[in-house]
Amino acid sequence: MSALKLALVQLSVGAQKAANLARARTKVLEAAKAGANIVVLPECFNSPYGTQYFGQYAEEIDSAKPSVSTQALSEMARESKVYLVGGSIPELEPSTGDLFNTCTVWSPEGQMVAKHRKVHLFDIDFPGKIVFKESDVLKPGNALTEFATPWGKFGVAICYDMRFPEVAMVAARRGCVGMIYPGAFNQTTGPLHWELLLRARAVDNQIFTAACSPALDTGATYHAWGHSTIVDPYARVVGTTAAAEDIVYGTLDLGLVDEVRKSVPVNSQRRFDVYPDVSRS
Amino acid sequence: MSALKLALVQLSVGAQKAANLARARTKVLEAAKAGANIVVLPECFNSPYGTQYFGQYAEEIDSAKPSVSTQALSEMARESKVYLVGGSIPELEPSTGDLFNTCTVWSPEGQMVAKHRKVHLFDIDFPGKIVFKESDVLKPGNALTEFATPWGKFGVAICYDMRFPEVAMVAARRGCVGMIYPGAFNQTTGPLHWELLLRARAVDNQIFTAACSPALDTGATYHAWGHSTIVDPYARVVGTTAAAEDIVYGTLDLGLVDEVRKSVPVNSQRRFDVYPDVSRS
Repeated sequence: MSALKLALVQLSVGAQKAANLARARTKVLEAAKAGANIVVLPECFNSPYGTQYFGQYAEEIDSAKPSVSTQALSEMARESKVYLVGGSIPELEPSTGDLFNTCTVWSPEGQMVAKHRKVHLFDIDFPGKIVFKESDVLKPGNALTEFATPWGKFGVAICYDMRFPEVAMVAARRGCVGMIYPGAFNQTTGPLHWELLLRARAVDNQIFTAACSPALDTGATYHAWGHSTIVDPYARVVGTTAAAEDIVYGTLDLGLVDEVRKSVPVNSQRRFDVYPDVSRS
Repeated sequence: MSALKLALVQLSVGAQKAANLARARTKVLEAAKAGANIVVLPECFNSPYGTQYFGQYAEEIDSAKPSVSTQALSEMARESKVYLVGGSIPELEPSTGDLFNTCTVWSPEGQMVAKHRKVHLFDIDFPGKIVFKESDVLKPGNALTEFATPWGKFGVAICYDMRFPEVAMVAARRGCVGMIYPGAFNQTTGPLHWELLLRARAVDNQIFTAACSPALDTGATYHAWGHSTIVDPYARVVGTTAAAEDIVYGTLDLGLVDEVRKSVPVNSQRRFDVYPDVSRS
């Protein structure tokens, strides 16, 4: 299959988990009705984003024992018959009590096909602008993640993982045609780096990239940047939006991956005799 | 020393080598008079850019036996008392007869302090737009290159080397505060990727980046993009120009490197337990 329709649901997220899940379902169904094959929810879509919330909203993620949010995600995927990248939710690991920021991916049959625990925790300190320290309450994941679809494999990672080029380099060299990042940059880092990082990952790896943010809620403690964006393998922006709730659509012509790789054949020109290949450890 | 003035000489390059060297000298002296501490010339500044020219314009590069162009570069650096990144010239290796695309770097005393042979040769094929194959006549270099200045170390690489993120990753992790690329993108790849690649290298490595192009000559066989550009460690463009001959200046506040690395401490957050470090082989 040579083209697919991708939808990024830039969801308005509030303090009520049940309302967040219901609103997500409405928007996922709307995207599916518009023809989307893969639908993406934002980082922390069932909870406000903030270290003070993660414990309270956390759920166990166990495919044999559905939780409120994983049950809802499974049903949304099945009902809408799409691949659903379920944003992220705070995850409680019952064996240790540890918390993670975790993305689950669901097949059109409602099966969980991938789970990614954010590998790089968001600890930043812009004096006078924004200080945030996920590592105060979260533990990091220890693995990179991909999932298969009829259109090819996609890598999935979360927000701050975008800043680490190795994540996308490894995915692309293992055959992924795109990287999908649920993410929530803010009003400081968003205008500086959000689109740039997506375009950088696309140009270097000749893949599609997409990042799905929550909508801006000026009443929340964290002011998300919004601007959910889809980029093609030439690093051209093919879909984006402002900060309000919206759905961003993009038709991904998979032929572009081969086309750009034939025009600019960096894949066969890398000099692994001069520097190591990060995709081989 | 906490700040330096960088100048990129976007030179008009023609078919006469002696005229190119004379014009380069005039512009380097002009930049030095304006206060520049490091001056950069463009890729292939002593010759038109094209595989049909490289053999004819090539010179041996041997610090014990100056050639026409290396002698001129040494004198320009000494006369202007700047660090001079001497763009690139076609180099003849007398022991093998091989040709390289080579950048030399000169101290204010006129000594050659670094020599970089382009590691990634420019072989691209955009059907109906541009086909170019340096590897028809050139051999690639086999090493990454840096040089020391009173303001810190800088990596140096040439044009298509920009497309390979490892080059800047290695330089930054070895302590370089900037990457300097003499380069000559064209009217197809320039608008697509020139500024993006410079900003990508800057944001991922939290370093200054700069690329110096020849001016556009619509009568030449290769139509350079121009747009010589300087980017800061936040990935903000601090100096750029259009396609005509010009000198682009930028004041590099080295304190910004520490500032951004403190705000967004990716340097200490990389997960070399999950993927390898390309700077260690």
